Amino acid sequence: MARIVGMDVLDIRFPTSRDLDGSDAMNPDPDYSAAYVVLRTDDGPDGYGFAFTIGRGNDVQAAAIRALAGMVVGRSTPDTAAGLAALSRDLVGDSQLRWLGPEKGVAHMAVGAVVNAAWDLAARRAERPLWSFLATLAPEEIVGLVDFRYLTDALTEAEALDILRAAEPGREERSAHLRAAGYPAYSTSPGWLGYSDEKLVRLAKQVVADGFDMIKLKVGGSLADDVRRLRRAREAVGDGVRIAVDANQRWDVGPAIEWMRALAPYDPYWIEEPTSPDDVLGHRTIAEALAPIRVATGEHVQNRVVFKQLLQTGALSVLQLDAARVGGVNENVAILLLAAKFGVPVCPHAGGVGLCELVRHLSMFDYVAVSGSDEDRAIEWVDHLHEHFTDPAVVRGGRYLAPDQPGFSARIRDESLEWYAYPDGPQWSSR
Amino acid sequence: MARIVGMDVLDIRFPTSRDLDGSDAMNPDPDYSAAYVVLRTDDGPDGYGFAFTIGRGNDVQAAAIRALAGMVVGRSTPDTAAGLAALSRDLVGDSQLRWLGPEKGVAHMAVGAVVNAAWDLAARRAERPLWSFLATLAPEEIVGLVDFRYLTDALTEAEALDILRAAEPGREERSAHLRAAGYPAYSTSPGWLGYSDEKLVRLAKQVVADGFDMIKLKVGGSLADDVRRLRRAREAVGDGVRIAVDANQRWDVGPAIEWMRALAPYDPYWIEEPTSPDDVLGHRTIAEALAPIRVATGEHVQNRVVFKQLLQTGALSVLQLDAARVGGVNENVAILLLAAKFGVPVCPHAGGVGLCELVRHLSMFDYVAVSGSDEDRAIEWVDHLHEHFTDPAVVRGGRYLAPDQPGFSARIRDESLEWYAYPDGPQWSSR
Repeated sequence: MARIVGMDVLDIRFPTSRDLDGSDAMNPDPDYSAAYVVLRTDDGPDGYGFAFTIGRGNDVQAAAIRALAGMVVGRSTPDTAAGLAALSRDLVGDSQLRWLGPEKGVAHMAVGAVVNAAWDLAARRAERPLWSFLATLAPEEIVGLVDFRYLTDALTEAEALDILRAAEPGREERSAHLRAAGYPAYSTSPGWLGYSDEKLVRLAKQVVADGFDMIKLKVGGSLADDVRRLRRAREAVGDGVRIAVDANQRWDVGPAIEWMRALAPYDPYWIEEPTSPDDVLGHRTIAEALAPIRVATGEHVQNRVVFKQLLQTGALSVLQLDAARVGGVNENVAILLLAAKFGVPVCPHAGGVGLCELVRHLSMFDYVAVSGSDEDRAIEWVDHLHEHFTDPAVVRGGRYLAPDQPGFSARIRDESLEWYAYPDGPQWSSR
Repeated sequence: MARIVGMDVLDIRFPTSRDLDGSDAMNPDPDYSAAYVVLRTDDGPDGYGFAFTIGRGNDVQAAAIRALAGMVVGRSTPDTAAGLAALSRDLVGDSQLRWLGPEKGVAHMAVGAVVNAAWDLAARRAERPLWSFLATLAPEEIVGLVDFRYLTDALTEAEALDILRAAEPGREERSAHLRAAGYPAYSTSPGWLGYSDEKLVRLAKQVVADGFDMIKLKVGGSLADDVRRLRRAREAVGDGVRIAVDANQRWDVGPAIEWMRALAPYDPYWIEEPTSPDDVLGHRTIAEALAPIRVATGEHVQNRVVFKQLLQTGALSVLQLDAARVGGVNENVAILLLAAKFGVPVCPHAGGVGLCELVRHLSMFDYVAVSGSDEDRAIEWVDHLHEHFTDPAVVRGGRYLAPDQPGFSARIRDESLEWYAYPDGPQWSSR
């Protein structure tokens, strides 16, 4: 029986703060980073995964991943849905480590990194891209991936099974459509807070010319600046292109409502992260005050329990799952099922390091086997750091192409691992 | 100007899993542990603080504390309210570390450990026990400790000031009462899930004889066992003693309600942690279904934003703050003010390592300067591990005595630090 014989954990950091790529109202100077994990096997491909951070603390995240090694190394290589469910359950449920969360923050992201690496490994062994590997599982196997603890007042196992069975007939047709036409994307590249108006306008026009019908702007620094930037963006792209705005948790509930009312004349499509990601009731109050402007959140939503409540209150019009914030593929399957139950479209958070690479698999699985729809859905596209991945995300004409290489696309190129190793790689030791 | 010249971080673990002290439905075998921090100064006493964990992962918690050293070492010793507010703000607000939370889990508990150590240091320098040091601050200074971000839809600075000013006149009288009569306690010692019925009954009778008028039992393992244990406890202590029960997050919303209805004939005073600590709406549903049985939670509530919502929904009848879960004294002052605004009594979580030592200061400060009341309030008392502290909590006749040594009582004795150091101290290296 094949086994996991080792687990390597690397601290990889990209010095993105130099160019203000990724700058927003709460994160002025991120160095996009990965606490990167390699599951080594004795008989075939290895598995790759990571937690995403923005610089300082990536070493803490790496330490949290290392703390899981005892539950991973020596284990038979999980290559079935049941094996992957058991791994996820063991890691989430450790009775002592649980105290560090439960199921949130550094400890939970560590679980997510390892679980995602195990899925990468399983899909590689099956010689399928993850989205397709997941979408060939039986509804019963998919339901078996999910931890329903704390969910049953909103979603039962039987309801989840019904959702998956309803989507079963069209799976092949939708897979073929994905391979031919890809999946909708939107672009955040023009909208970073550190960019000049001129750069904003130039990039906004560029991405529309490239085929995107939706862009996103960061807001929340200064109201006068935001009004001007949104006006200029609207003038640049015209009325036919959706413009979402993203406050990155900058506001309290009252100020969020006031600020967005000042931006409303420029027809923002959604307001993303208007306040604390922990504030379910605050999101509901904001959503009620600002309708028909949609409220979106998710990149900092810690687990399925908080998503459940955001859906139960009707606070969310758009659910932004994140591949590397929660407990990995298993919990994201739960989140996709919750969204389908409540009829809310999923538009994943991406960007950072490798998030575009990962989330496309989850949205494509959702399209094929869960919601069965790509209506009102789009995956965030940020065009940086893709060159460091062996299976980079590709967007053409405003759409993500369907990945066809085996795995979860989480593998970083060996040269990049060497070059950006922190603190001893040449990019850091020479500064 | 006095400075912090060094920060030591130690991994200290007590092998409590041997005796099943601390066993409950979710934590069957905890080794109570402290990620312990010493702030060293160049001109006077040092400051002590810790994050509490239950074993595995204490090294991860220690790594997270170490990641804060750059913001602490070299800093002038904070000994005023303004200096302590600035330290808290800097640690919570670091733009890169923030991604690891924000304000939750390992990263936030690390901030709490350092902030608490700084308060210990400041109170030692002022030669006052922390509760008294805090209770001599002006209302404006106390309000200045609080980060009102994300709170203003429930509690404004002006409202907080009103609460504190209203409590100002009776401060001296209440301080004198504390010194003479102490503060109410309740006992969890009889109720661990790993204890036999005989031990439960014997200990329950003992603590009532010792002067307690409230005890707590762990529940959530098996319903038949819980019914029998609660019946035997009720027979042992009679109707005049309150019996709270604690499920440690064991249930989903529906099962919590069913299970508690089966226990209702034995008059449980509160149900603690019936479900996920993240599930605000779930707690509300449970509270509405089970009234007049109270719902209590807090030891795993990650920050003030979640407490805010638990209060806004009316889910909580009892708020159980924890000294070492949130961002330290500053955030606990915010939580005490929120509780006072909503008129909900605070009954802190204690036990573990050193939590009894710490929370008594917070409850006593609340009594003197915030709520001004000890009605319906009691601090948890668990009689273990106190011998390792230089200023241990003391309970007499069912009441916590007011501590009178300078500081926050967080210091562990040097011999204990040596003996229980993990993994190289004699308690671990010899096993």
